[in-house]
Amino acid sequence: MSVTVPTTVDGARLLRRLDELAAVGDTGDGGVCRLALTDADGAGRDLVVTWMHDLGLRVEIDAIGNVVGTWPADAHDAPVMTGSHIDTVRTGGRFDGNLGVLAGLEVIETVLDSGFVPRRPLSVAFFTGEEGARFAPDMLGSLVYVGGLPLEEALDTVAIDGAVLGDELERIGYRGTHPCPAAPPAAFVELHVEQGPILEAESTTIGAVTGVQGILWTEFTIVGQSNHAGTTPMRLRRDPAVVAARIAVEARAIADDLGGDQVATVGRIDLHPNLVNVIPARATMTVDLRNTDASTLARAERRLLESVDRIAADEGVTVERRTLAHFDPVDFDPDVVALVERIAGDRGLSVRRMPSGAGHDAQMLARVCPTAMVFVPSVGGISHNPAEFTDAADLTAGADVLLDLMLRLADDEHRTATTEDHR
Amino acid sequence: MSVTVPTTVDGARLLRRLDELAAVGDTGDGGVCRLALTDADGAGRDLVVTWMHDLGLRVEIDAIGNVVGTWPADAHDAPVMTGSHIDTVRTGGRFDGNLGVLAGLEVIETVLDSGFVPRRPLSVAFFTGEEGARFAPDMLGSLVYVGGLPLEEALDTVAIDGAVLGDELERIGYRGTHPCPAAPPAAFVELHVEQGPILEAESTTIGAVTGVQGILWTEFTIVGQSNHAGTTPMRLRRDPAVVAARIAVEARAIADDLGGDQVATVGRIDLHPNLVNVIPARATMTVDLRNTDASTLARAERRLLESVDRIAADEGVTVERRTLAHFDPVDFDPDVVALVERIAGDRGLSVRRMPSGAGHDAQMLARVCPTAMVFVPSVGGISHNPAEFTDAADLTAGADVLLDLMLRLADDEHRTATTEDHR
Repeated sequence: MSVTVPTTVDGARLLRRLDELAAVGDTGDGGVCRLALTDADGAGRDLVVTWMHDLGLRVEIDAIGNVVGTWPADAHDAPVMTGSHIDTVRTGGRFDGNLGVLAGLEVIETVLDSGFVPRRPLSVAFFTGEEGARFAPDMLGSLVYVGGLPLEEALDTVAIDGAVLGDELERIGYRGTHPCPAAPPAAFVELHVEQGPILEAESTTIGAVTGVQGILWTEFTIVGQSNHAGTTPMRLRRDPAVVAARIAVEARAIADDLGGDQVATVGRIDLHPNLVNVIPARATMTVDLRNTDASTLARAERRLLESVDRIAADEGVTVERRTLAHFDPVDFDPDVVALVERIAGDRGLSVRRMPSGAGHDAQMLARVCPTAMVFVPSVGGISHNPAEFTDAADLTAGADVLLDLMLRLADDEHRTATTEDHR
Repeated sequence: MSVTVPTTVDGARLLRRLDELAAVGDTGDGGVCRLALTDADGAGRDLVVTWMHDLGLRVEIDAIGNVVGTWPADAHDAPVMTGSHIDTVRTGGRFDGNLGVLAGLEVIETVLDSGFVPRRPLSVAFFTGEEGARFAPDMLGSLVYVGGLPLEEALDTVAIDGAVLGDELERIGYRGTHPCPAAPPAAFVELHVEQGPILEAESTTIGAVTGVQGILWTEFTIVGQSNHAGTTPMRLRRDPAVVAARIAVEARAIADDLGGDQVATVGRIDLHPNLVNVIPARATMTVDLRNTDASTLARAERRLLESVDRIAADEGVTVERRTLAHFDPVDFDPDVVALVERIAGDRGLSVRRMPSGAGHDAQMLARVCPTAMVFVPSVGGISHNPAEFTDAADLTAGADVLLDLMLRLADDEHRTATTEDHR
């Protein structure tokens, strides 16, 4: 029997695994809730680790709970790595993150089944706490993986529910012994749903992701004077709710004014005591600013902070500021981006270059090795939502591109690419 | 031994009872949390009922949990009633409501100790769920007491924590058998802390309260499109948090524009799922509008609803509206108001007429009998806050005025007042 390089994954097997994993933390409305290091996340991890073992991969769990499965199990060379995350936001969809992990597993199983042995080993990882929905910052596991955040500091992170990250890892059995930061892989590629509307709107199947927006998450705690809603004249009020509202309106105005890629989101507002007839004592809120351009992002931040100071002075409240996450925009490796584009074209798939609006583990790996991402369309651009959906054909097309990509990277093909491809 | 009409209460005894009651549900920061019909409220009720029994009052608990103590215990005539409430907001102070109940108890004990027997019986009541912080509307118990809300409807009220009012009454042992609505008292007077800054600012000890602001509580539920904070272009967003923020800013602007007594408060905002990197699916918020003038209040409401419609259309979200409470402005009995003013003057206390910015049980009793209120200063105007404070001298002065007032009302003195007093 002759051994040939495999060219297509088993789409049905991939969909089956996506279904099985989506059943863990199923919210009953098509969505999934597996906040990082909760029992549901632990159960999801157990399922994926079982699949890794079933394929005979070498499974390594590191000190921050990142899990890497490598084939062949006895390989020593730096692998071509793929992967993503399986934690979700509270109202998460079934594809965000999970697709990248399970497509990686599917690629390895496909290669394994074919009998073909690439020059470099292949590995698939899932990283701890990518979403940032329970522990900030987001992409925490991959950040520690590349040495961007000290392990001890990461283990001390406190969740929005008060739990400590290290304790939660221990509790669900994922405080591993493999060293972290780890030795860099030879290359890293990540398949992910776009989570935005562009590919679907342009009827394009594959996004060759050129880089990731810079992200700035700021939490503001506004302290005013709690008082009775009926008896306190308007001129004497120091109302944190009004300040929070004005900041939210201002954040929207800044994004609208700057235009381009700039986005601004107020996703969280907590008033205390949060009662109809009490002027709140305190408001806590977050502002999420993102831009592919670092200098515009910095301008947005400056405008926001100036506005917050002005609004706070108007109302006579104090505002404390805390940076929950701050990542500069990231450019992916031009050779790997070009390779994604070429592979998609060779397969007859429509493809476009595009930046990522969301943060991804790949942007952390880009610090230590040649990295890029592959996007497939999100119907209606919807994500972080039970209605998140990608057509089965697109899921399979993305996994096929990932298969080619990993095999060609395992042959160091990106290093022989012509410079024209990088423009 | 000759019996004389008592003229001063025992201030130390009143303060002692205020301290003892404040220890129930003590929040450790000077404040009190006894949300209506919680265990803490039950324990506070038990304490006051014990005191009522100790004085030999006839204690009647009605079907909505209002408690009335009457002296003499075998009296049949309509009493002169005083009272207030002992439930608090989540971050309540120690005087709001409690003062009116315990001063009433103190007046009765003073009269009882003196041996003087007034023409009419005296009674002191505390009404269920005045604050509206757990069950809406506020002043629920006194509203049912005067027949303003059907008993069965009130018993079915669902708390913000999901509990049903009738079940909670049963659970804490305060679903009484006395009929409700009840026979009206001969008159009703209520001593209360001002909860606003006016008396202190003008160095005035006694407020003769002429009426109560109209109150309108509206809850808005805003439904948009939840999505990823990074990948959703600004032009495609339908963000309920931005809509809630714009409504809050608009509520402030309406109150500022209308001026006068108009106040507007956004005390509650709940985003869902309330995560930093997710455009919310839904926002729920409340707007509390109050004015002494019914037509201006109606104007404020019209402007608010027009703004909400316009803002919702701008953003492409849907908004559902629910009225949580709606009470027209109330005018107290001019004869009783004049009597308060005269008594304070006779005692050499500084006094001014003023409206109440807060809702009070007295405004419900005003529907069925001659009614007024007595205010004493709130330091800094602070209320619904652990820092709520009134000087001991002012507490005692207020209770002394209440003593005179109840005794003169028991002699029907207000009915013989000259009409000049009413202007």
